[in-house]
Amino acid sequence: MSKPRSLAVIDLGSNSFRLVVFSSADGWWKRTDEIHETVRIGAGLEATGDLQPEPVERALETLEMYAHFLRATSVDEVRPVATSAIRDAGNREAVLGAAKERSGLEIEVLSTADEAYYGYLAAVNSTAISDGVVLDLGGGSMQLTRVEGRDAREMRSWPLGAVRMTERFLAKDPPKPKHLRALRDHVAEALADVDWLGGGGHLVGIGGTTRNLAAAAELHAGLPSFGVQGFGLRRDALDGLVERLAELPAEERGKIPGIKSGRGDLILAGAMVVQGVMEAGGFDVLETTEAGLREGVFFASLLAPADPPLFEDVRRASVHNLAAQYGASEAHVGRVARLALELWDELASAGRHAGDPEERELLAAAAELHDIGTAIDYDDHHKHSRYLVLSAGLPGYSPRETALVGQLCRYHRKGTPTLGDFAALARKGDEELLARGSAVLRIAEQLERSRDQAVDAVDLEVSDGVAQLRLRAHDDVTVGRWAAERQRDIFERAFGLRLEISADGPARPAARR
Amino acid sequence: MSKPRSLAVIDLGSNSFRLVVFSSADGWWKRTDEIHETVRIGAGLEATGDLQPEPVERALETLEMYAHFLRATSVDEVRPVATSAIRDAGNREAVLGAAKERSGLEIEVLSTADEAYYGYLAAVNSTAISDGVVLDLGGGSMQLTRVEGRDAREMRSWPLGAVRMTERFLAKDPPKPKHLRALRDHVAEALADVDWLGGGGHLVGIGGTTRNLAAAAELHAGLPSFGVQGFGLRRDALDGLVERLAELPAEERGKIPGIKSGRGDLILAGAMVVQGVMEAGGFDVLETTEAGLREGVFFASLLAPADPPLFEDVRRASVHNLAAQYGASEAHVGRVARLALELWDELASAGRHAGDPEERELLAAAAELHDIGTAIDYDDHHKHSRYLVLSAGLPGYSPRETALVGQLCRYHRKGTPTLGDFAALARKGDEELLARGSAVLRIAEQLERSRDQAVDAVDLEVSDGVAQLRLRAHDDVTVGRWAAERQRDIFERAFGLRLEISADGPARPAARR
Repeated sequence: MSKPRSLAVIDLGSNSFRLVVFSSADGWWKRTDEIHETVRIGAGLEATGDLQPEPVERALETLEMYAHFLRATSVDEVRPVATSAIRDAGNREAVLGAAKERSGLEIEVLSTADEAYYGYLAAVNSTAISDGVVLDLGGGSMQLTRVEGRDAREMRSWPLGAVRMTERFLAKDPPKPKHLRALRDHVAEALADVDWLGGGGHLVGIGGTTRNLAAAAELHAGLPSFGVQGFGLRRDALDGLVERLAELPAEERGKIPGIKSGRGDLILAGAMVVQGVMEAGGFDVLETTEAGLREGVFFASLLAPADPPLFEDVRRASVHNLAAQYGASEAHVGRVARLALELWDELASAGRHAGDPEERELLAAAAELHDIGTAIDYDDHHKHSRYLVLSAGLPGYSPRETALVGQLCRYHRKGTPTLGDFAALARKGDEELLARGSAVLRIAEQLERSRDQAVDAVDLEVSDGVAQLRLRAHDDVTVGRWAAERQRDIFERAFGLRLEISADGPARPAARR
Repeated sequence: MSKPRSLAVIDLGSNSFRLVVFSSADGWWKRTDEIHETVRIGAGLEATGDLQPEPVERALETLEMYAHFLRATSVDEVRPVATSAIRDAGNREAVLGAAKERSGLEIEVLSTADEAYYGYLAAVNSTAISDGVVLDLGGGSMQLTRVEGRDAREMRSWPLGAVRMTERFLAKDPPKPKHLRALRDHVAEALADVDWLGGGGHLVGIGGTTRNLAAAAELHAGLPSFGVQGFGLRRDALDGLVERLAELPAEERGKIPGIKSGRGDLILAGAMVVQGVMEAGGFDVLETTEAGLREGVFFASLLAPADPPLFEDVRRASVHNLAAQYGASEAHVGRVARLALELWDELASAGRHAGDPEERELLAAAAELHDIGTAIDYDDHHKHSRYLVLSAGLPGYSPRETALVGQLCRYHRKGTPTLGDFAALARKGDEELLARGSAVLRIAEQLERSRDQAVDAVDLEVSDGVAQLRLRAHDDVTVGRWAAERQRDIFERAFGLRLEISADGPARPAARR
């Protein structure tokens, strides 16, 4: 295994500075470190046009700390990038000079087009969006990007960031109705002439505001929460949230579960900007992603020279990434996946289920990931696999889909499949989907019990309430057949069929060699 | 990192056959695979003196499967060992020959002394026992070993295994009081002349019976369960459990939470044998370990040429083992551990807490393990660290201690320390212990925020409700000082002292290099 390569992206935003270290090697990547400071370098900018001395001093101290950290941890490459607040400040050159002097860091100031581009890369590489709009709301500015066939077609930036809008419209705490109205009108006016907005479609949101709003909505709805990746924030839920936020002073807003305490003052203005975009564009749902500008900068480096630097298939990339990080034996996992899908396909052909391609994709993902928990411990590794899936998340999948993949991993051995804690995320039929997937995955795992890939393929014939499973094999399959037969109960519960297994191929030669 | 070395131990017991693969490298070891079959090769042995054809055929099929598995997974070394049932059977040579013929495996039949020795190695290498008795109860036989200064001083074996006792005394289902009385008398008589039993002391139990009894008692008491390692099964809890078991038919016994369904018929006889040992020896508590014969065989190989092959300090070995498996940066972790312990020691010297050495050891363990969760993901790595501690367990520590180490890891960053789900395991004062440990660990972590080991040591002076923390440093510590100062609240809550931090050493030179 080659040594991982590390890239530190420092994102100097108007509200917070964030240093994120990404590591990558051999087909996987992950965040391996993160330092976050609520610097608020943009404080006072809206009123004066300049970055103010106190925020600048906080910024310089933070950059000094980052420089220390980077020297101590030997990161391969560093990319410090600044956005709206620094970009738009009258005294920007003086601040950049002081930053270089104090920390040694050469900061790259992103243009609005650069900033939108990295946001677009983050969104399209972490969700399944093909056509729609990416909303990137920061402390200083907001970017919207029109996406068609995964390409960025139109881009525009507005100085509608949460810090700025708070300072300009909601300085009074709590704000009065007329302040709210003024902010709402301001946003609507700014967006009125965007001819490529409107008519709804797929909207993806990035940035701390949308993450906090999604977390609050998720908790308010009593849904199990393992992050907000892929969460769909509905317009009506957002409207309700804005109503609650508008009645509270800033400090109380930060106590709403899901809203970070340091964001209590900004969240209302941010939420209303998002509302304005959903209104102007006719969007019913905002899909949240945990990726942002920093991931965009990283993806540009990871996926170069592809142009644009996009994963071919985000959902497959997510699954492969997890499998490569925690991967167990490829030969074993690959064979289990193939046998499980064959069995599932045969049962669809026999009319025992609808053969829904989305269900098949979830099964394929679970088959690839079912053993990753062995990286934690062999004991209870089925539960560890679920823990890893839920902890890392699967960008491109919704929370419901991620939970189903996790439960399929969980039930690839031991126990009776149930939606358990995830019932609140489920749709009608998901209990049966889980029963089917767990059953075929478990049969496939047992056919590979001896881990020697002796079973090459399976055929299935269904008649009179009996499923005749025929194993095609190049080696003795006594073991796998015997082990799989002991999973008849779970199979019968899932498909209402009695399972009988027979085998082609040599009998017991391997054992007598 | 060197390639891990693997050893497969096959334990051919009277009740079940178990293949366990252990891997080890660079200071860590773990179970990496396991196959378990309830073969019951001993069924019918008690009545006839011979292994019976049906159980033998099940055994041979299982061994064939294991042979397949071993060929497919390329294990470095294989040790198949047989215990009581095969050892004592009239037809043992024929069965061993058939096993060799069908599977190619050469089975080593352990003498009762060997069997007791491996059980002793398992117990002394997975608990903190120094003087006491190891009880190893299998399907065929039971071994007791007298331990003094961690050495095995006396050993004896009895044919009192759970399968044998069930067949001989409890064949009627459910049994009648006279059957229970006969079993009880039989055990008491067998143990009557053991002059080194009696007077109580430390009793450690190994084997499936004790694991199941401990799990049932743990669940019955409503305790949070993350395995039974180190669980203390009290005599009164065991008596209650035996009473409940005796009223149920075998099938119902296997439905008691904690009792495996395949063990429902054997558990009552097994529980009564354990009861008999506790009675004869005057033991109040049985400490359970998850290690057994298989681990004993593995430890003999791992720890050779030490004689006896024992870890010098089981608790330290457990912590090191986890740290080496999932270890983060040694330089960083080592410095955080040192600073946390210094701070804790200084606070004890200043009379702010009692300086309990057990508390100090838990803090040291948590300091070494606090970052292991980064092996899963940087995000929420404090929670992942706890998950790994609880999942893997810490042999030598009680469940309460393991939970406290887990909570200390959890609260090394973010959140307000609380016992949470583990309150039921806690003792008086544990909430404060956790508050103290979390506070010093978090201060130490923040002093190492830039991960450059700039802070060499700390001094503390306490007066007038203020803790003056002086940092001794060889490099600029602006960062660490600033970061640690932001943890004043958690420090003040834990110690009732306002924290002030000052620094010796160079000012900001590193940042200007």
